Amino acid sequence: MDKTMFDQRYALYLSEIEHFLSAQFEEKPHWADLYDSMRYSLLAGGKRIRPVLTLEFARMAGMDWRQVLPVACALEFVHTYSLIHDDLRRGKPTNPKVYGETMAILAGDALQPEAYRLILTAPGLDARERADCALILAGASGADGMVAGQVLDTLHQPKTEEELTEVHRLKTGAMIAGACMLGVAAAGGSDKLRAAAEEYGYQLGMAFQIRDDMLDVVGDEATFGKPIGSDAEEGKVTFVDLLGLEGCETAVRDCTRQACEAVAEHDGEFLCFLAEQLAGRNK
Amino acid sequence: MDKTMFDQRYALYLSEIEHFLSAQFEEKPHWADLYDSMRYSLLAGGKRIRPVLTLEFARMAGMDWRQVLPVACALEFVHTYSLIHDDLRRGKPTNPKVYGETMAILAGDALQPEAYRLILTAPGLDARERADCALILAGASGADGMVAGQVLDTLHQPKTEEELTEVHRLKTGAMIAGACMLGVAAAGGSDKLRAAAEEYGYQLGMAFQIRDDMLDVVGDEATFGKPIGSDAEEGKVTFVDLLGLEGCETAVRDCTRQACEAVAEHDGEFLCFLAEQLAGRNK
Repeated sequence: MDKTMFDQRYALYLSEIEHFLSAQFEEKPHWADLYDSMRYSLLAGGKRIRPVLTLEFARMAGMDWRQVLPVACALEFVHTYSLIHDDLRRGKPTNPKVYGETMAILAGDALQPEAYRLILTAPGLDARERADCALILAGASGADGMVAGQVLDTLHQPKTEEELTEVHRLKTGAMIAGACMLGVAAAGGSDKLRAAAEEYGYQLGMAFQIRDDMLDVVGDEATFGKPIGSDAEEGKVTFVDLLGLEGCETAVRDCTRQACEAVAEHDGEFLCFLAEQLAGRNK
Repeated sequence: MDKTMFDQRYALYLSEIEHFLSAQFEEKPHWADLYDSMRYSLLAGGKRIRPVLTLEFARMAGMDWRQVLPVACALEFVHTYSLIHDDLRRGKPTNPKVYGETMAILAGDALQPEAYRLILTAPGLDARERADCALILAGASGADGMVAGQVLDTLHQPKTEEELTEVHRLKTGAMIAGACMLGVAAAGGSDKLRAAAEEYGYQLGMAFQIRDDMLDVVGDEATFGKPIGSDAEEGKVTFVDLLGLEGCETAVRDCTRQACEAVAEHDGEFLCFLAEQLAGRNK
């Protein structure tokens, strides 16, 4: 797969994802302010890596990927609620500043059931696939997944490589692996492909997070899109502290290679290309 | 049904619900503090009206109600998260004071996916029933259900009878009706029983809420368990302002009668007894 083909497919996924998201909560009930607040954050853009992964795994499992848009976007709903509630703590000029803290809590709270509603009414899926997908989402985002990672990251002080790996595995890896597995589950794909999806997702998540730690030290603030040095300011130990920049580069390269290997026998060129792009990203 | 029979059945449901809830999140992972925070609120007691309704409707639909405990308690998880996030605003001496605001947000956030996990792994249900129940929960608690009601209640100023009725229907009614419908759906019951469950739930919810407004004026603080006059202090218009105390009594009696009528042909004596108890409650 060359860069043009990769870019074309990514752009197609992205445009369908944005289109689907922008059709959500368009009505204006009495509580239109709640809808506006949810839309504000849902449509704030971003790379949409997670839903892209869901669509690509559904395609690999032999399904018309457009049918999986509700499932892909459901995970993006959950990712979005987590960003809103995160920003409550950080005082960023996002949803809580625009709509107030009470609305930010409530908009985040509503995005969770709305995510399940999307999955459980997805037209292209039968009851078994819907239930399967909803359970994957619950596992990825729950008390032994994303939220556990957020608790460790914000309320504990992870300091060793083992502790940091666990945080990233839970906080970032669980949702990225969940996105991948959702695609396979929605398509009724094989257990073998689902296991490959999980492995790919965790390796990609780890590479992504280590690269994030690197960019927080050596990144260009304007390109990266968030303040450089914020980890050090918050007193956080990162992979850069533990492995050094060179050690981090090696680790990112290792995780990326393992991600590619996981999907090598499954028509995984797009996914391998994506992993390599993210490994070298500057933002 | 006499009071002794009613009390016995309620006590049996209650004890099984408490037993089921107290078995949740007992393990101690690295993030045991998250588990502790969720348990603290889950096990804070209360009347457990919502899960009792789920169990009774499952029994009426001909199912072994013990099999429906995970579904009944899933809705209680969601009710509990809503109390935790509510208390963030109100500065009450509950979860946010004990575990801190960050943990209170995260514990509430985790209870939602854990609720879906409970439903989607309930041993006595097939995939169709699980998906059906999860969708009912999402509808009752989402952006057109409970959260819409919370937005109207806290960020708008409902003043007319119509506006107040809408708030209560969404904020309280949706989850109580959801609890009732969950029991029927878990048992694979008839559409007719499900419609009766919805109607009973909305009428019970409305009676419950109007009685709440009355107790905020005439209640005994020690018995009621929350400060008397808090609605007036917050500048809230209530049904007492609009209908007067006598008008409220009539309205509670009307809703209670309609609740009883909805289940009259469905072996609904326990439910009617419950509605009458709640109509006359002092706490």
